[in-house]
Amino acid sequence: EGFITMGNCCDRPKDTYIRVSLPAVCFVWQIAMVVLFGVFIRYNEESDAHWPEYKKKQNITSDAENDFYYRYPSFQDVHVMIFVGFGFLMTFLKRYSFGGVGFNFLIAAFGLQWALLMQGWFHSLDYNTGKIYIGIENLINADFCCAGCLIAYGALLGKVSPVQLLVVTLFGITLFAVEEYIILNLLHCRDAGGSMVIHAFGGYYGLAISWVLYRQNLNQSKHLQGSVYHSDVFAMIGTLFLWMFWPSFNSAIANHGDGQHRAAINTYVALASSVLTAVAVSSLSHRTGKLDMVHIQNATLAGGVAMGASAEFMITPYGALIVGFCCGIISTFGFVVVTPFLERKLKLQDTCGIHNLHAVPGMLGGFISAIVAAAATESVYSKEGLVSTLGLEGKFANRSPGTQGGYQAAGTCVAIAFGLVGGAIVGFILKIPIWGDPADDNCFDDEVYWEVPEDEETIHPVLEYNNHMTHKQTESNFTLEQS
Amino acid sequence: EGFITMGNCCDRPKDTYIRVSLPAVCFVWQIAMVVLFGVFIRYNEESDAHWPEYKKKQNITSDAENDFYYRYPSFQDVHVMIFVGFGFLMTFLKRYSFGGVGFNFLIAAFGLQWALLMQGWFHSLDYNTGKIYIGIENLINADFCCAGCLIAYGALLGKVSPVQLLVVTLFGITLFAVEEYIILNLLHCRDAGGSMVIHAFGGYYGLAISWVLYRQNLNQSKHLQGSVYHSDVFAMIGTLFLWMFWPSFNSAIANHGDGQHRAAINTYVALASSVLTAVAVSSLSHRTGKLDMVHIQNATLAGGVAMGASAEFMITPYGALIVGFCCGIISTFGFVVVTPFLERKLKLQDTCGIHNLHAVPGMLGGFISAIVAAAATESVYSKEGLVSTLGLEGKFANRSPGTQGGYQAAGTCVAIAFGLVGGAIVGFILKIPIWGDPADDNCFDDEVYWEVPEDEETIHPVLEYNNHMTHKQTESNFTLEQS
Amino acid sequence: EGFITMGNCCDRPKDTYIRVSLPAVCFVWQIAMVVLFGVFIRYNEESDAHWPEYKKKQNITSDAENDFYYRYPSFQDVHVMIFVGFGFLMTFLKRYSFGGVGFNFLIAAFGLQWALLMQGWFHSLDYNTGKIYIGIENLINADFCCAGCLIAYGALLGKVSPVQLLVVTLFGITLFAVEEYIILNLLHCRDAGGSMVIHAFGGYYGLAISWVLYRQNLNQSKHLQGSVYHSDVFAMIGTLFLWMFWPSFNSAIANHGDGQHRAAINTYVALASSVLTAVAVSSLSHRTGKLDMVHIQNATLAGGVAMGASAEFMITPYGALIVGFCCGIISTFGFVVVTPFLERKLKLQDTCGIHNLHAVPGMLGGFISAIVAAAATESVYSKEGLVSTLGLEGKFANRSPGTQGGYQAAGTCVAIAFGLVGGAIVGFILKIPIWGDPADDNCFDDEVYWEVPEDEETIHPVLEYNNHMTHKQTESNFTLEQS
Repeated sequence: EGFITMGNCCDRPKDTYIRVSLPAVCFVWQIAMVVLFGVFIRYNEESDAHWPEYKKKQNITSDAENDFYYRYPSFQDVHVMIFVGFGFLMTFLKRYSFGGVGFNFLIAAFGLQWALLMQGWFHSLDYNTGKIYIGIENLINADFCCAGCLIAYGALLGKVSPVQLLVVTLFGITLFAVEEYIILNLLHCRDAGGSMVIHAFGGYYGLAISWVLYRQNLNQSKHLQGSVYHSDVFAMIGTLFLWMFWPSFNSAIANHGDGQHRAAINTYVALASSVLTAVAVSSLSHRTGKLDMVHIQNATLAGGVAMGASAEFMITPYGALIVGFCCGIISTFGFVVVTPFLERKLKLQDTCGIHNLHAVPGMLGGFISAIVAAAATESVYSKEGLVSTLGLEGKFANRSPGTQGGYQAAGTCVAIAFGLVGGAIVGFILKIPIWGDPADDNCFDDEVYWEVPEDEETIHPVLEYNNHMTHKQTESNFTLEQS
Repeated sequence: EGFITMGNCCDRPKDTYIRVSLPAVCFVWQIAMVVLFGVFIRYNEESDAHWPEYKKKQNITSDAENDFYYRYPSFQDVHVMIFVGFGFLMTFLKRYSFGGVGFNFLIAAFGLQWALLMQGWFHSLDYNTGKIYIGIENLINADFCCAGCLIAYGALLGKVSPVQLLVVTLFGITLFAVEEYIILNLLHCRDAGGSMVIHAFGGYYGLAISWVLYRQNLNQSKHLQGSVYHSDVFAMIGTLFLWMFWPSFNSAIANHGDGQHRAAINTYVALASSVLTAVAVSSLSHRTGKLDMVHIQNATLAGGVAMGASAEFMITPYGALIVGFCCGIISTFGFVVVTPFLERKLKLQDTCGIHNLHAVPGMLGGFISAIVAAAATESVYSKEGLVSTLGLEGKFANRSPGTQGGYQAAGTCVAIAFGLVGGAIVGFILKIPIWGDPADDNCFDDEVYWEVPEDEETIHPVLEYNNHMTHKQTESNFTLEQS
Repeated sequence: EGFITMGNCCDRPKDTYIRVSLPAVCFVWQIAMVVLFGVFIRYNEESDAHWPEYKKKQNITSDAENDFYYRYPSFQDVHVMIFVGFGFLMTFLKRYSFGGVGFNFLIAAFGLQWALLMQGWFHSLDYNTGKIYIGIENLINADFCCAGCLIAYGALLGKVSPVQLLVVTLFGITLFAVEEYIILNLLHCRDAGGSMVIHAFGGYYGLAISWVLYRQNLNQSKHLQGSVYHSDVFAMIGTLFLWMFWPSFNSAIANHGDGQHRAAINTYVALASSVLTAVAVSSLSHRTGKLDMVHIQNATLAGGVAMGASAEFMITPYGALIVGFCCGIISTFGFVVVTPFLERKLKLQDTCGIHNLHAVPGMLGGFISAIVAAAATESVYSKEGLVSTLGLEGKFANRSPGTQGGYQAAGTCVAIAFGLVGGAIVGFILKIPIWGDPADDNCFDDEVYWEVPEDEETIHPVLEYNNHMTHKQTESNFTLEQS
């Protein structure tokens, strides 16, 4: 019954006035963050000024043992992926580059604060003091958490208002922290690069929202739904920074030493393999073998997504190559065949094709990690290596690699379920007509939420003069000029 | 009397011929650098081939203790901020992108050599040998020093010649080294991220120069003073690299261990907070809530500037959030209200709005650090932590935190005074009509100092043919095409 | 006789259909890589899960001693140079940005896998097990190896098909590994930053190929051979990332400790010096002193190339400045005078001017390293430092610095010879008319190998409507509009 009412509301003409809602949400939220940080968040022993004392107590001889030096370079690479990687990947639309990179910026800055709290409560809370103690690893995890929401944004790009995006982020981070707790702590899965918790979750979360928000008449914005030459080049900035830094993404929170080292190598070779097969399938799918920028911008990354969960494992370099090989093909095939199919048959509009880049490769990555974990042996890993790599310590010390494999598969399913159910619910919330979303003929257009500069016409003053002089006679030409 | 003569000179028509002056300055300067480096600059013990001997003598067991490994990742991040961050932030003008990124490149490459010398004489000179011994920390400081001049360039963007910029840099680096010596060594202030020595100084230095160089008829270049769609996207590259790497900027020369760790965390959260409030105020300032790219490109960074001086302190994460919160508001408000006011009432033309992004947040950052330092207690910092964080060692061992706070405030005033007085003097030097600066109707135009490619018209040969065939009949249309 | 047949073949009209050849090469190659990786490539002791055991056996006390932490930050910087640096440097052409950045991506992803194998067989093969054991240093070297081929691509940009590029890469990597083995292992040269093995080899390799592939009627594509305003700004992204990260390039595989530290410092100052002299000569070469973007994009990097081979040496900071000084001049002079001369007189078409940026500075860098090595003394290096820096260990323990200098010069000649001879042979292979290369009037055009978006015309729906309405009367105008 409630939904029916909403349905009616949605027929009203769209109002994209956000001068009250956007500032209100930002201010209220930011003040809440200040208060909650004040109550809960403190420096951990490695970032607190008591570190010299702690060092002595723990018999640590060198500042180089501070986790900061193990993880900060990777953190910065991940940071670049979140803000420049995802941000510029979404500039490909001809007139939505401001929204692509700008709202990406807003989502991530908004989300990382909430993520520090949510993940902190689940993972870094000291029950004695009631405080969350944070260090560099928390920052990396907060960035990871934002990645889930930015993936979801990929499906919604151009069709939602910034206020809606903040709602997507608020719920997305919350759901992320819960599913992550279930998968990593309760099921005790290994997922260093987040194939399940980030990509599968984020992908299906975005797809479910987009499915609920289906726009019958989106073809009214068809003329803005493609790229122009330079917007495609901008998007390549995003692609390349994602591609280059993916080894850091998958190794950022892996174990010190061989864990980080191996995760970086596996991801590096898997990504290289994806590029070759993505190019091959892209060429195959065109009449004379021309390449499609959409495939190069996206499917080349599929190997990194799929390597996430097993990056730390002894998957071997050729195993990583095979993962990249298959995912490059599957992802490109998805762009050529599946996305159009989903739009026609399932009423699912997925602007960036996150189904092919995140949802499916993330799911595959989860299942691959199940197989690789189940196949782990002491001879390959060494006794100590097996324990630390699969995390078979403490109350999980008796778990066999085979059982661990089963849990990896179960974890993947949990991530997908959270994404689909959570996304559907959030989608219905977003249908309430108070968020200032654009009309169907107004999508993919920066004009709606940004002050967009008048283009080009005023560059040459002489020209302007000419325009003015000949305005009467060449009215129609002048209009054409402005394009 | 001298100034009057100058005033007269300036009425002559502008001559932007720089074929003698620019090469001459570059060559003379570069040769001087070679000579001075030859006389003064040597490798320090960590970058010299005697390092293995030094290691043994100092009982250092691992190469990982070489400062290179503590600071090189941060150095590279700072390097990216200087060249890509500042450089692309200044590409936003529709026809001054070459000048924005290109002259930024020239200033920084020119300045860092002089900075190595100037800062070396003040900080790294061995009085026994008369040599300056350099290592990675000197490179970071040289980059920091350039940042001051690049901030000043922001106020002058589009209105000065490259030769003038080299003069600005020469004096800017010199003034920087002196004020830095006074603030950090004599007053013994703490300023890891340079709120005072870099941002407040650089900001007021640029503003003072711009004030002296006021151009009555700058509105003759009004048509070039805005952005176009893609130049705004280019500028976002600059913004994001500055934003992402600011934690590295503020932690690059902080103390090993908890110092660097804490500085990075504080800056990370302060910046996130700035984004939210900058978006909120930007939206509030538009009739229907649309966002303005100028605010997103600039005001989102204010939190990083203001956190500079207290990044290393135990300001707590919520303290950092509050700093970002306030500065995001103040900076955006500055762009909306103060910059137009300054231009109308104070005859101060500030192309990039450095007043709002650097001068004011830098000044605030200095005063914030005074408060935070004065509030420091042994229980919060630990005994050893208080000494190392506030630097209360050696002849400053008896200084109380409260006194240190007073000196932090005094240091901020010194930085501002140096900026204003130095800038005014340099401004008058730049009025001498020998530097090849552009006329008022020629500002913000790359044509003056760059060979600019003819745009677009020659892409399609068929089109060219058409142009030629129909040249007679469509003369005026053809002219229009060239826009 | 064979060549004559080929010559005849080449007169047939060009067919750029690559729908069979490109996917076939990619798939066959990638499958071969999987098989060869499966047979040969394994993790080394620092990336293998046996690391905890190895640590104990070797008495290593800290994970920080894992080579990953010494080299990963530099590796990521090099990675950015390969994909964003080289990639965006080649986006400067007005209608070949997709090909510039996209084929660069393909070459590097293809090449690095083959490089891991080729370099592995020569350098990391364990003769007992028949396996190649890889770690982070192998990844850096694989990236270096790709750099050689990407340099060669610079000479061929816009004139070859992607299939030809894969052939260039396949042979390029192979030749690289062989010449590298001869130079570094047999002649035992020192070349940390690859002046000889990367730049001199890659430069002459590309020039030789381009010389064989000379196109008589390339001026038929003249209208596409320049830049447009924004493509020049894109290219600056490439320039700056190369420039900023060159210290990491030259120090990435240098000795731990002072070696990496010194290499970074030397490169940093040499590059700064190049910028000043490149600007000076660029300004000198224009009638009124205007700067040329081509020089700023390229010649500013010459100092980094030339510092490669002696980056690790005690060349002193002023020595590095002098190297940068001279190479900035020579390189810019090359763009102004030599490249046009080569094209007119030697029939050598060099799209990016790699002759001036890589071939000549690389060669000079090799000879500079000969002089610096020959001048090395124990007092400057210390006994231990001399041995480790010049690598005078094991069977080379009796080599004097003077002799080492001679070998450095010999190594440079070997690199050039490999480049020239190898390039000539590969050039003839590329003349076989099966590779789908473009016709002379079709060069520098993305349309040939990419699906290029229709530009701009469809942005404003109102405009589209107008176009349609007035189509009859304004046919010719409408055609003009599409430009």
